[in-house]
Amino acid sequence: MSEGLKVAVVGATGAVGSEILRLLGDRWFPVREVVPLASARSAGKSVVAVGREWTVQPLGPSCFDGVDVAFFSAGASRSKEYAPLAVEAGALVVDNSSAFRMDPDVPLIVPEINAHAMLPHHRIIAVPNCSAIILLMAVAPLRALGRIRRILVSTYQSASGAGAAAMEELRTQAEDVLAGRPAQPCVFDQPIAFNLFSHNTPISDDGFNGEERKVIEESQKILGMPDLWVTPTCIRVPVMRAHSESITVEFEGDAPSEESVRRVLEGAAGVRVVDDRAANRFPTPLEASGQDDVLVGRIRRDPFDPRSLSLFACGDQLLKGAALNALQIAEARLSG
Amino acid sequence: MSEGLKVAVVGATGAVGSEILRLLGDRWFPVREVVPLASARSAGKSVVAVGREWTVQPLGPSCFDGVDVAFFSAGASRSKEYAPLAVEAGALVVDNSSAFRMDPDVPLIVPEINAHAMLPHHRIIAVPNCSAIILLMAVAPLRALGRIRRILVSTYQSASGAGAAAMEELRTQAEDVLAGRPAQPCVFDQPIAFNLFSHNTPISDDGFNGEERKVIEESQKILGMPDLWVTPTCIRVPVMRAHSESITVEFEGDAPSEESVRRVLEGAAGVRVVDDRAANRFPTPLEASGQDDVLVGRIRRDPFDPRSLSLFACGDQLLKGAALNALQIAEARLSG
Repeated sequence: MSEGLKVAVVGATGAVGSEILRLLGDRWFPVREVVPLASARSAGKSVVAVGREWTVQPLGPSCFDGVDVAFFSAGASRSKEYAPLAVEAGALVVDNSSAFRMDPDVPLIVPEINAHAMLPHHRIIAVPNCSAIILLMAVAPLRALGRIRRILVSTYQSASGAGAAAMEELRTQAEDVLAGRPAQPCVFDQPIAFNLFSHNTPISDDGFNGEERKVIEESQKILGMPDLWVTPTCIRVPVMRAHSESITVEFEGDAPSEESVRRVLEGAAGVRVVDDRAANRFPTPLEASGQDDVLVGRIRRDPFDPRSLSLFACGDQLLKGAALNALQIAEARLSG
Repeated sequence: MSEGLKVAVVGATGAVGSEILRLLGDRWFPVREVVPLASARSAGKSVVAVGREWTVQPLGPSCFDGVDVAFFSAGASRSKEYAPLAVEAGALVVDNSSAFRMDPDVPLIVPEINAHAMLPHHRIIAVPNCSAIILLMAVAPLRALGRIRRILVSTYQSASGAGAAAMEELRTQAEDVLAGRPAQPCVFDQPIAFNLFSHNTPISDDGFNGEERKVIEESQKILGMPDLWVTPTCIRVPVMRAHSESITVEFEGDAPSEESVRRVLEGAAGVRVVDDRAANRFPTPLEASGQDDVLVGRIRRDPFDPRSLSLFACGDQLLKGAALNALQIAEARLSG
C-alpha cells in the first residue's frame, strides 16, 4: 500500500467525477488510495475505482491529509473554498471548475496544446471549459500552417455539460413528450427534449453569455494569443454527452490548402479526422461519445474568402472536455 | 360553386402538402374546389381542407384541367414533369421543390423580401429552400442599415425538412433508444435521435453539400446580390419541425447599432424579435413551431470586428419555410 498515489476526487458522484474514477483504473495512473468526496447527501455511498470499492466521504477541510493529487469537479464555489486547503496539505490540484481559469498565476491547460505552460511551482492547474477544449483541439494544430486572426464558432452542446441530472432530464422529458405529456423543465429553465436553446448562463452587456465569454477568454489564454478574435454562439441541443462545433477559422493571409489541413490534423495527438465526402461521413456526437479523440471533418476552404476555412468537430464533453483532460494534466505533471 | 379558385395540391399527403391544405382554410384564400394529388399509393385516401373532405387522386397529366393554382410539394422530379403541364392547362404553379429555383426565368420569392420580382407573365413561381427563407427573413431587413458583404450561418435543421417519414423516424428512434434498443436509421442514413449530423445531401468538390449550395445560390438570387459571400454549414438536429440558425452578418462598413437592428427587425413583416437578455429568453424551435413569424434574437455586435454582428433565428420549417411562404406567394400574385 505504500507505492502509488493517494488521489482525491471532489464531486465523485457527479457526471465528470464518475468518469475520473473510471479513468483512474483505465490509464497508467499509479493509484494507492482513492478518496471520493461529495456533499453530505452523497456521503456513505460506495463507488468503484481501480477495481475496488471506496466509500464516499463528505467534503471537509481535513479531507486532503496525505493526498498527492486532488481532482475537483464540484463547481467553482467548492473549488474556491477547498482547493487552497488541498494545496496547503501538499496536493497537486487539477480543477475542472471555472474558479481559477483566468487567474494569471494558474495555468489553463490542454496538454496537447500548452503543456509547456505548467511549471513546477504551479500547485493548481485549471482544466478549460469543455467547449473551448474541443474547439482548440481542432484549431490549435492549424497554427503550423499560418497565423490565425479570428475564430467563429457555433456550438451544439450536449446535456452532459450541465451534469448528470441534466442528462436524466433529457431522458425523462423525451419520454414525457413521446407519451404526449408536457416536458417538465427543472435543471434547465426550458424544455431540452426535441428542442434547443441559447446557453443558459447570464448575458453581459455586450450580449454574450457566460459560456461564450469563457470560450473567448480561455481560447486567448490557452493559445497565448490575447489579441485573437473569437466569436462564439453557444447553443444547448438534445444530445446526451458529446459536444459538436461548427467552426470557421480566418487566417491573416490565405488559408492553407485542404490537403495540408487534413495532413496536420491527421498528425495531431488527440484528433481523429472523419472527413469522407463520398460517403457523406463526418463527425457526429454519437460517434464521438466514449472516444478519447476529438473528431474533426467538413474540412473546406471558404468559397469566397481566401483567408477562411471551415471545420466541424465533435468531442466527448465528459472525456476530452473534462475528465480525460484532467487526467492527462496530472499525468503530464507527475511524469514531467 | 362557381366563385373562387380551383386549387391543386401535389403531394397532398406529405408534411408540406398537409400544411397547405390546412392553411387554405385558415387564410383568406378563396377556394371553390380542392384537388389533392399524390402517388397512386395514397390515392383514394381522404383529406380535409376548407371544412370539407376531398378524395386524393393519383397525379397524372390530366389532373390540372380548370385548375387556377397548383401547389407542388412532391420533389423536384415530379415538379419538372408536371409543372409545365399545369401551366399549359392554365394554372399558376407555386413550386416548393428545387426544380426551377435557379432558372433565370423563374422568380424565387419570399414575399416580404422580393415580391416585386414576380411579374404577370411568370406562371411558375419557386419557393426557396427552407433554410434560405429563414436566414433571409432575419437578414434581409438589415439591408436598410448598411451594405451587407458576407453572411456566415450554421444551421440546426429539424427532421421535418426531410418529410413526414423523417419526423416519424425521430419519434420511433427516440422511443427505441430510451428503451435500450438500437436506433434503426431508414430515411436518414444515420441515427437522428439524440444525435446530429452534417446534412445528408451530396458533397461537391469544394466541400459544400447540396443544402449549403442552395443556401448560397438562393440567398444571392433572392437578395439580387450575386456577389454576396455566403458560408453555410448545414446540420440536422433531433428537433421536430422548426429550423434554427446561428448567423453572423458582416457589413461593408461598421455594423449598425444593436438598437437600430432591433428597431428594424421589430418593424419587419413576418419577424418577431425574442431578445430578452435579462430573462435569458431567445428564440427556440419549440416556440417557433406552429408560428407564422420567424423569431429573431441574440442580437449583438461582434466584440472584436466592428463590421460584424450576430443573430439567432428560429422558424417553422413547414410554415414560413415552405407551406406558408407558398400560400403567401399565391395571395400576392392573385391580389396583385
